[in-house]
Amino acid sequence: MARIYNFSAGPAVLPVDVLEEIQRELVDFEGSGMSLLESSHRGKEYSAVHDEAAANYKELLNLSDDYAVLFLQGGASTQFAMIPMNLLGEGQTADYTNSGAWAAKAIKEAKLVGNVNIAADCGTEIPTRVPTVDELNLTPDAAYLHITSNETISGAQWKAFPTVDAPLVADMSSDMLSRPFDANQFGLIYAGAQKNLGPAGAALVIIRKDLAERVPASTPTMFKYATHIEKDSLFNTGPCFTIYVMMLVTRWIKKVGLEKLYKQNVEKAAKLYAAIDATDFYKGTAVKECRSDMNVTFRLPTEELEAAFIKEADQNDLKGLKGHRSVGGLRASIYNAFPPEGVDTLISFMNEFEVKNG
Amino acid sequence: MARIYNFSAGPAVLPVDVLEEIQRELVDFEGSGMSLLESSHRGKEYSAVHDEAAANYKELLNLSDDYAVLFLQGGASTQFAMIPMNLLGEGQTADYTNSGAWAAKAIKEAKLVGNVNIAADCGTEIPTRVPTVDELNLTPDAAYLHITSNETISGAQWKAFPTVDAPLVADMSSDMLSRPFDANQFGLIYAGAQKNLGPAGAALVIIRKDLAERVPASTPTMFKYATHIEKDSLFNTGPCFTIYVMMLVTRWIKKVGLEKLYKQNVEKAAKLYAAIDATDFYKGTAVKECRSDMNVTFRLPTEELEAAFIKEADQNDLKGLKGHRSVGGLRASIYNAFPPEGVDTLISFMNEFEVKNG
Repeated sequence: MARIYNFSAGPAVLPVDVLEEIQRELVDFEGSGMSLLESSHRGKEYSAVHDEAAANYKELLNLSDDYAVLFLQGGASTQFAMIPMNLLGEGQTADYTNSGAWAAKAIKEAKLVGNVNIAADCGTEIPTRVPTVDELNLTPDAAYLHITSNETISGAQWKAFPTVDAPLVADMSSDMLSRPFDANQFGLIYAGAQKNLGPAGAALVIIRKDLAERVPASTPTMFKYATHIEKDSLFNTGPCFTIYVMMLVTRWIKKVGLEKLYKQNVEKAAKLYAAIDATDFYKGTAVKECRSDMNVTFRLPTEELEAAFIKEADQNDLKGLKGHRSVGGLRASIYNAFPPEGVDTLISFMNEFEVKNG
Repeated sequence: MARIYNFSAGPAVLPVDVLEEIQRELVDFEGSGMSLLESSHRGKEYSAVHDEAAANYKELLNLSDDYAVLFLQGGASTQFAMIPMNLLGEGQTADYTNSGAWAAKAIKEAKLVGNVNIAADCGTEIPTRVPTVDELNLTPDAAYLHITSNETISGAQWKAFPTVDAPLVADMSSDMLSRPFDANQFGLIYAGAQKNLGPAGAALVIIRKDLAERVPASTPTMFKYATHIEKDSLFNTGPCFTIYVMMLVTRWIKKVGLEKLYKQNVEKAAKLYAAIDATDFYKGTAVKECRSDMNVTFRLPTEELEAAFIKEADQNDLKGLKGHRSVGGLRASIYNAFPPEGVDTLISFMNEFEVKNG
C-alpha cells in the first residue's frame, strides 16, 4: 500500500501496526465470533479492553490512586463546559490563561457558568506564544487555574507548567503523552483522543477524585464527573471502539517507550524548525521559546505561494499542511505516530519549492 | 469464521457485509493512503461519508426540509438532559410518559431542568406495557410530550404514536428504522446508534429546526441543538468512525428495504412469541398488545432454570440472552441485523431445554 504522509492536526496519523491489528480482528474479535463493534459494553471482551486502556494510562502517567481515568464523549469542547459546571462554585473565581483560539473557547464556556479572571492574555499576539509563569495574575483562593498546554492552531506550547496553589487544569488535547511530565501536579487534565491518543470519538479525562465532589446537585447526571468516576466510565454505553483503538495506541506507546517518543518528537520538530530558520523564505509564526513540538506553524512570503505550496505538497503525498482556516499559513502536525521520514521528505520538498519559487 | 448469534441489547449485531467492508478498507480508505480513522473531519474522504449518512437518513425517514439530522455524542443519556435544556422554557411544563426504566431516566433529568407532568405512569406495572393514548393526561400548552417508543429493558413498545398538539419527542434508541413511520409528526426523535443504526459512540437526533430556537443564551455551546444545526454536526470533531459505520448501515437498509426489514422483524418476533406462548414453561413479561418486536423478554419457572438456560445457550453460541440486571429473566434482542436463522435456532434450543428441564 502507498501510504501518504498525513500532517493533519486531528484526526491524525495512527501507527500502521495498530491499524493492521484492528483490520485483522475487525470481523472476529479474538475468536469471539463477533466484531468488537458488536460487543456489549458489559461483555467480557470489551471489559478487558476498557480495563486495560485505563490501566495503561495510569501506568504511562504514573498516576496515584487519588486520580480517576475517564473516557467521556463530546471531545474537549464538552470539557470546556463540564469543568466550570463541576469545579467552579458560586461566588468563586476561576483563573484562565488566554494563549489562543482553544484557550479562548474554554474561557467563553466558563463565563457562561461563573466568574472568570484572565490571569494572562497573549491570545492575539503575533508572533504567537503562551504566557510566562511570571506574568500570571492569579486570584487568591481561585477555584482552579486553566491552561492550554499546546495551542494546536497557533503552534505555541507550554514547555514547563506553573506551580500554583489552586488545582491546575490543562487542556492537553494536542500534546498529551507526547512527553513525560508529572501528572500528579494537576487537578484535571483532558484531551480529545484524535491527535496522539487514537481516533475521534472520546475525550480522555484525568481527574483528582476529590474535585468531583464540588458539583451542584442540580447538574445533569451525564455532566457530572462523579457519575463517571462512580461507574468507571460505564454509566451509559460509551464509545467502545474508540476506546479499543486508544488501548491499542497505549500498548504501542508502552512498546516504543514514552521517553523515546519524546526524544523523537523533539528531533522531528527541531529539524523542521531548523529548515524554516535556515532561510528568509519560510518564517515560523510562534515565539522561539514557545514553539510547539506537535504543530509546526509557518508562513511563506505571500498567500499565493502558500496556496501553491499546499497544492504541490498534496500532489506529492504530503497531505494536510494547510493552516487552520482562522489564521492561514502552513501547519505541519507531527504527533507521536508521525514518522521521522515524513519530516525529512517535507524538508526536501521545502528546499525544492524555495529553489523554484524563491 | 464461526459467527455466533448475538442477542445483545446493544451494542448489538451488525450486518456481516458491513463488517467485511469496514475490514477491507480499514487501513487504506478508498485508495487515500490512510485509514478513515486517521482522516480529518474536514477532509474530502470523511466529508463524503458524513454527507451521505445524513442524506440517507433524510431519505429513509422521508424528512421534510424543516428537519435537521444531527450526529451527537453522549448517547441517549445526554439527550435526556439536552431536550429539556433546549425545549423546556421557564414557566412551561413538559409532559412525559413513564413506561419503564428508560422513560424514568429521561424524566429524572427533565426534573432537574424544569416542570414535568407525568402524563401517564405504568412504569412499574407487571406485566410491562406502554400507556394507551386514552389514558394520557396532557398539559394544555405543554412544551412537548416525551415518549419512549420501545423500552429496551422491559420489552414493551408503542405500536402507534399519539397525535397531540405539543411537539412530540421520542426516544427511539431501540427501534429506530426497524419499521416505517411518519417522522414528520415528531418534533424531535433521538436514538443511540448501538442497536439498529451502528456501533456505540453517537446519537442520531432528528429535530424540527424551529424547536432549536427556544434555547436560553446561557446554555453551553455544545449542549445547544442550534450549534450543531448551524455547523451540520461539525462544530467540533465528531465521532467520525461511528458515523462512517452508521452510513454503511443506512446503505444496507436501503439495499434490503425498510419495508422488508420491518416484515422480517415482525415475523422473527411473532415466531419467538409463539414459541413462548406454546407452553407454560416460558412466560412473556409484556402485555401482548405492547410486545416489542426488538426486545423479546420472558421468564422461566425459576431463577435457577433461567441461569441454567443462559449458561447452556451461551455454550451453544446463543449469546447475550441474560435479561437486564435490574429485572432479571431472559431477553432476546433481535434488531434489524439479527438473522432469522438465529431465531429458529433459539426456538429449537428452547424446545430442547424444556424437554430436559420441564
